[in-house]
Amino acid sequence: MTLYMNLAELLGTQIEQGFYRPGDRLPSVRALSQEHGVSLSTVQQAYRHLEDSGMAAPRPKSGYFVPAERSLPALPGVGRSTQRPVDVTQWADVRDLLRSVPGPNVRRLGRGMPDVHAPTLKPLLKLLAQATRRTDLRCLYYDSAQGAEPLREALARHLVSSGCQLAPEDIVITSGCQESLSISIRAVCEPGDIVAVDSPSYHGVMQILKGLGMQALEIPTDPVTGISLEALELALEQWPIKAIQLTPSCNNPLGYVMPEARKRALLSLAQRFDVAIIEDDVYGDLAYQYPRPRAIKSFDTDGRVLLCSSFSKTLATGLRVGWVAPGRYLERVLHVKYISSGSTSPLPQLAAAEFLKAGLFEPHLRRMRSQYQRSRDQASDFVTRYFPVGTRASRPQGGFMLWIELPADVDCLQLYRRLLTQNVQIAAGSLFSASGKYRNCFRLNFAGHAHRSIEDSMRKIGMAAAELIAEQHALG
Amino acid sequence: MTLYMNLAELLGTQIEQGFYRPGDRLPSVRALSQEHGVSLSTVQQAYRHLEDSGMAAPRPKSGYFVPAERSLPALPGVGRSTQRPVDVTQWADVRDLLRSVPGPNVRRLGRGMPDVHAPTLKPLLKLLAQATRRTDLRCLYYDSAQGAEPLREALARHLVSSGCQLAPEDIVITSGCQESLSISIRAVCEPGDIVAVDSPSYHGVMQILKGLGMQALEIPTDPVTGISLEALELALEQWPIKAIQLTPSCNNPLGYVMPEARKRALLSLAQRFDVAIIEDDVYGDLAYQYPRPRAIKSFDTDGRVLLCSSFSKTLATGLRVGWVAPGRYLERVLHVKYISSGSTSPLPQLAAAEFLKAGLFEPHLRRMRSQYQRSRDQASDFVTRYFPVGTRASRPQGGFMLWIELPADVDCLQLYRRLLTQNVQIAAGSLFSASGKYRNCFRLNFAGHAHRSIEDSMRKIGMAAAELIAEQHALG
Repeated sequence: MTLYMNLAELLGTQIEQGFYRPGDRLPSVRALSQEHGVSLSTVQQAYRHLEDSGMAAPRPKSGYFVPAERSLPALPGVGRSTQRPVDVTQWADVRDLLRSVPGPNVRRLGRGMPDVHAPTLKPLLKLLAQATRRTDLRCLYYDSAQGAEPLREALARHLVSSGCQLAPEDIVITSGCQESLSISIRAVCEPGDIVAVDSPSYHGVMQILKGLGMQALEIPTDPVTGISLEALELALEQWPIKAIQLTPSCNNPLGYVMPEARKRALLSLAQRFDVAIIEDDVYGDLAYQYPRPRAIKSFDTDGRVLLCSSFSKTLATGLRVGWVAPGRYLERVLHVKYISSGSTSPLPQLAAAEFLKAGLFEPHLRRMRSQYQRSRDQASDFVTRYFPVGTRASRPQGGFMLWIELPADVDCLQLYRRLLTQNVQIAAGSLFSASGKYRNCFRLNFAGHAHRSIEDSMRKIGMAAAELIAEQHALG
Repeated sequence: MTLYMNLAELLGTQIEQGFYRPGDRLPSVRALSQEHGVSLSTVQQAYRHLEDSGMAAPRPKSGYFVPAERSLPALPGVGRSTQRPVDVTQWADVRDLLRSVPGPNVRRLGRGMPDVHAPTLKPLLKLLAQATRRTDLRCLYYDSAQGAEPLREALARHLVSSGCQLAPEDIVITSGCQESLSISIRAVCEPGDIVAVDSPSYHGVMQILKGLGMQALEIPTDPVTGISLEALELALEQWPIKAIQLTPSCNNPLGYVMPEARKRALLSLAQRFDVAIIEDDVYGDLAYQYPRPRAIKSFDTDGRVLLCSSFSKTLATGLRVGWVAPGRYLERVLHVKYISSGSTSPLPQLAAAEFLKAGLFEPHLRRMRSQYQRSRDQASDFVTRYFPVGTRASRPQGGFMLWIELPADVDCLQLYRRLLTQNVQIAAGSLFSASGKYRNCFRLNFAGHAHRSIEDSMRKIGMAAAELIAEQHALG
């Protein structure tokens, strides 16, 4: 990472954590230059970056300030550690969420759907239709278990943006990121093994561990800097952990980008204790900062990082095209891919490869990044406006998910059920914990393309939450 | 099954097994009517069925004969039992087969690709393109983990042809039959478990067992009547078998249709020993007889049969759309489906559902059945014509695979490698055994739409086999 980005990240973290409050004056360019031993222009670049992301505003002749209108909700707390590996539960609730919701009028803010109405996505549909008209009938044939070569070539080029230097033969195509994660965990671990995870964590991974008879060890995770390296180190000393599974860039559900230095430190830890890292990068391309954050995989020197991703968040979930760059586990990953689903459908692979090769992916990402960043600001604003006092909210640095923490006595499964009757679907926080923690939290998708509908939904959520709190007090 | 089909099946088996040889006179209608206590018209119906399948020919005023030109290769022997569960090997060779074969000129007779050039398949490509133009952008969204309802409805109707009475909610959509099998085995068994399989058996299942740390118990299998119930019963008495996995209708690789009475007997055995049956029906719709054979699932009374199938052999492998009807294992199958790949792509599901609902599937199946039956007759003929004396070959009753048994000292992996240099790919027999048996066997795909090219390939295979035998003799 460049010097100015390092500095911007540091200042940004301090602002996010409330060290500088809205309206506060930020350190002068000269002071920062001296303190950090960098040039004046480096500090100016850092401030320009903070300005772009709405975290600093210049006032003529007075330097930089935290924007006064930035009255953001406080960040969620760091989850307490369970201190020991646990069996995963919560399947009934996850299944409930995955089921078709009755009626097309339900606003589904519970699942990880991106906005698929952007004009920059339209060519993908054309390319899908085109692939069906190929005279070689390629879309009807088996693909190789590793996946279509044109797509692996295009991906190898694309992955340079996350700092990864990979060849097409280092990549295995899958039927989406869930398959990438499932295959990676099966390639590295065996039943009975312990996997360390960030917490809260993506429910799909929790359920994989449950299904494979593995245990999850939930590591406390900071909503700004990510998984606690200190707690992780302790856990690695104490337990025979086989792999670390986490989402370090644009985390799901918290939205943070783990600082680069911490990514490197995590890798060192993994090397010291000789464990694999299963890195979920599915939201990484949607970081609001440019260039996008580096993947842990990009620092990997001994092939212990399995990078998992897909087009589900950047293009469309319905494509079901993902990939793994499995490092030293390539042969095992290929075997597990073959036995899991044979091979991936050629049709969406061909269309996605053409989309990338035609240079359509980058402009689409650019558009979606800034759209989601604007939506994040709006959604944060709606939290302040409509949610009960004391509500905390994450401050995502990428993607389209908000993590909401309500006062401690609110049961969000109850909130979830009540909101369904009002045609609003959220994802209860307990799904994101192996042991059903985060009862008073939920995850909210703000990707929807209609600003009005998000505001309307969030108003409903806020009212339902306030009702629950009032009922609680009446009872108590 | 009807009386006449029972009789036709019995006579057919006797002809296939050489009890009646080419040119032999078959029993008179009256004699059979008396012997089996059925009406004359039932016997006449049975003979008409045998006539349709080329196994009997009427001569004016003389009754029915086995056609003289029917000089068929002898059937392969019944594999000897290993008598104990074994760990599965052979991955390196399977991987070799799955890899992209260099050059587009290679005739790939090793894999399970159907002919995708039939005009009756063309509408499917149109329907795929149409699905991309839906204004609701349905093909870009997540599907539910269970799969698209219109497809499950269409499948429930279609499955009546195999005797199954199922509701849409009894069916789970998968990304192909390999995923169906993989999910079913994981839903029923755990690492360390023993699964009984027919032998030779589909390599995809063997590799699933390997990947999951399970053991395969290979049961001797007759090339006409299928898995030996006697050997299976002995095995069930001796070992703690968790499930029986087999392909009873249009078996892969042997092509037999297990007689209905034996299917029922197998189910009784499974009930008596309380084990699950994982039934691979992926070739079942391609039986040359009409109506198609019943699935074991159709006799299931207590939900212990998991019916696995897909469109890979009937429409196109590239679709990656399959299904499971998992009986009492529904909840577990849904969980494993979710953790394996989240959900199946909506695009091919929507197209397939439209294809079925428009009544296009049955005519397509009819066409393919008779095309493959003709190709089977030609391919059998080419075996007699071009393969070394002593070659044995299966007599498929459906599908598009021929199982060839060369003289005992021929190594078909060697044959496979030699043929690759001549741009012909076959599948070595050892892939179809957990323990690398069937060294002198191979599987041949005769689905290719160009008669000439199959003849040419089979001539090459015959010559290469003859060469190997000659070299063997020179050495010995």
